[in-house]
Amino acid sequence: MKWPSHGANPHYLFEAMNLPVPNEKLDFSANINPLGPPPVLKENWFRLLESVMEYPDPHGTILKSKIARKEGLHESHVLLGNGGAEIISLIGRMLAGKRAVIVQPAFSEYEEACRVSGCQLQYHQLDEGWEWRDDDLNAKLKGADALFLCNPNNPTGVYYSRSTILYLLEECRRHQCLLIVDEAFYDFLGKYESITHYIKEYPNLLIIRSMTKMFAIPGLRLGYLLADPAVISKISAFQPHWSTNAIALKAGEWCLDSESYIDETRALIEQERMRLFHFYQKHGLLVSQSRVNFYLLKDPSLVDQHSFLQYLLHRGIIPRHTVNFPGLEGKWLRFAIKGPEANDKLMGEVEKWLDSRL
Amino acid sequence: MKWPSHGANPHYLFEAMNLPVPNEKLDFSANINPLGPPPVLKENWFRLLESVMEYPDPHGTILKSKIARKEGLHESHVLLGNGGAEIISLIGRMLAGKRAVIVQPAFSEYEEACRVSGCQLQYHQLDEGWEWRDDDLNAKLKGADALFLCNPNNPTGVYYSRSTILYLLEECRRHQCLLIVDEAFYDFLGKYESITHYIKEYPNLLIIRSMTKMFAIPGLRLGYLLADPAVISKISAFQPHWSTNAIALKAGEWCLDSESYIDETRALIEQERMRLFHFYQKHGLLVSQSRVNFYLLKDPSLVDQHSFLQYLLHRGIIPRHTVNFPGLEGKWLRFAIKGPEANDKLMGEVEKWLDSRL
Repeated sequence: MKWPSHGANPHYLFEAMNLPVPNEKLDFSANINPLGPPPVLKENWFRLLESVMEYPDPHGTILKSKIARKEGLHESHVLLGNGGAEIISLIGRMLAGKRAVIVQPAFSEYEEACRVSGCQLQYHQLDEGWEWRDDDLNAKLKGADALFLCNPNNPTGVYYSRSTILYLLEECRRHQCLLIVDEAFYDFLGKYESITHYIKEYPNLLIIRSMTKMFAIPGLRLGYLLADPAVISKISAFQPHWSTNAIALKAGEWCLDSESYIDETRALIEQERMRLFHFYQKHGLLVSQSRVNFYLLKDPSLVDQHSFLQYLLHRGIIPRHTVNFPGLEGKWLRFAIKGPEANDKLMGEVEKWLDSRL
Repeated sequence: MKWPSHGANPHYLFEAMNLPVPNEKLDFSANINPLGPPPVLKENWFRLLESVMEYPDPHGTILKSKIARKEGLHESHVLLGNGGAEIISLIGRMLAGKRAVIVQPAFSEYEEACRVSGCQLQYHQLDEGWEWRDDDLNAKLKGADALFLCNPNNPTGVYYSRSTILYLLEECRRHQCLLIVDEAFYDFLGKYESITHYIKEYPNLLIIRSMTKMFAIPGLRLGYLLADPAVISKISAFQPHWSTNAIALKAGEWCLDSESYIDETRALIEQERMRLFHFYQKHGLLVSQSRVNFYLLKDPSLVDQHSFLQYLLHRGIIPRHTVNFPGLEGKWLRFAIKGPEANDKLMGEVEKWLDSRL
């Protein structure tokens, strides 16, 4: 059986598992803001029709300078991309023929992007609980060209503190190694400790950001890279012309102004996470110590979660399988935190699952 | 002076030439359908807001099978891309470290994509008039891995017949060389001789298509590659996940159903091209024998066209400079064919230019 490599587009999961697609379904497999896109985007949607007819600004100057200003950086520190996935792909291309270490479990695109570039890979595997540990990392960094860390981590939701990042930055610098931190979900954190200013001091730091999760615009594709101008210039040479589309550029500008929407989202996610985790704890289910808008869940009575997954899919509840996350391999399921109604429905079905096991 | 590498986004041209941007301007530098996007896109624009919130189908199955059906091919013959530029970039990546020949003058992205992949390049330069000639092509194909041909050609608008393509296919096959035909403007031709069915017989044929010119959606980014399934599979491995955004996928489906819109566009372009060419001929200006929606123009009294270009820019008429087209190097200007009113304005300013020279 060929598992889909990512969440979202759930019909591919039903197809792979040879299950009928239920009429009503709730997709917990994509980690998108349950509030949907910010009001400014909905209200001004008709204005974007104009942008369709013009080539996008290939440099995305307006959005780029807006991001730079927000982060206290210069435009030359920013590269816009066709989603975080393109940024990762371009980094992989820069690493062609080199050696990289990936802190696992992690978003699978780092490995994909490296492999297709003929980059040699090693894992730094964290144990269940996913607390930071050094172990043999030092030995692995010897001769490595890059270290990938997803923080907050996808799929666990665990967040590694700024002091850990600073420690890794120093270690990587000592080994002449890039530190690539994927912060696709940083804006869902209640307390985020920014590391963007380190870019000025550490030219080996690359920070990947996505704008599609918080602003619920995955269909538009929009991400960016923050890094030293020399790195930006090297990577942008690989990027196709007009890579970030005009709708994403314009929507991105508007989204950056939606501060209150971010606060509202964080409050909702925190409230729902507490509600869900309380429920799971009460019923003896295990969760990852997520600080963001998704989490791992496990029924500890099962060796792998396949029967649980199947049960939920039959009822139109769609988790993300974890078969292709090294260290998880199906022993957990990942769920996005959605709105109260959807989470209630999820808890209802989980309760029925637990009853059915008795 | 650093010339912009492409048309569109004209403020970069004014900036490079240190000219003030006029209040009123007509952009002839981007070869986009003057009728704008087809009505179906405008009428259903609000429906696309929904697609923003969902990840695009990473395989773009619906659009892909629609294109395949239209071309009498199988889905496995089609790769969707984030504009033709991404397809070209992916092909460049496949050619890393190899040798390619480019028929010049041509769209500059082939060369860019090849260079950044460390691909060795040779030109097969056509002389002014740009009729096909073989010359030493055979010698150049020895040891070459790919031949790039833009047909109909950008920037000249000249169209090479199917028999020329078939001849090149045979020659390339004999030399175990790919033939990459960029048909970005094929749908503007009054009489297009399809070559897509050759893909089944010639696994060395790659056809690049764009949907952004005819359907006036350059802001959305949408292109595709038609080729042998083995080539498609090799190239798609390099492509970032979710590369074609959800708006482009949906808009692409609708555009493919807009047959009558294509007919209407062709009729308009043909009428306007005749009107423009008649005017230029009457005034002793030279044009390329374009069969599509743009053409090269030259004032034969000038060595290079710089003063002509400057004159027009001052008056808000924006041609495409040709400085970065090998074989043209500023000796021509390129103009898109726009609607009657815009073309009238252009002819009016050209007439004034001619008067000013006396």
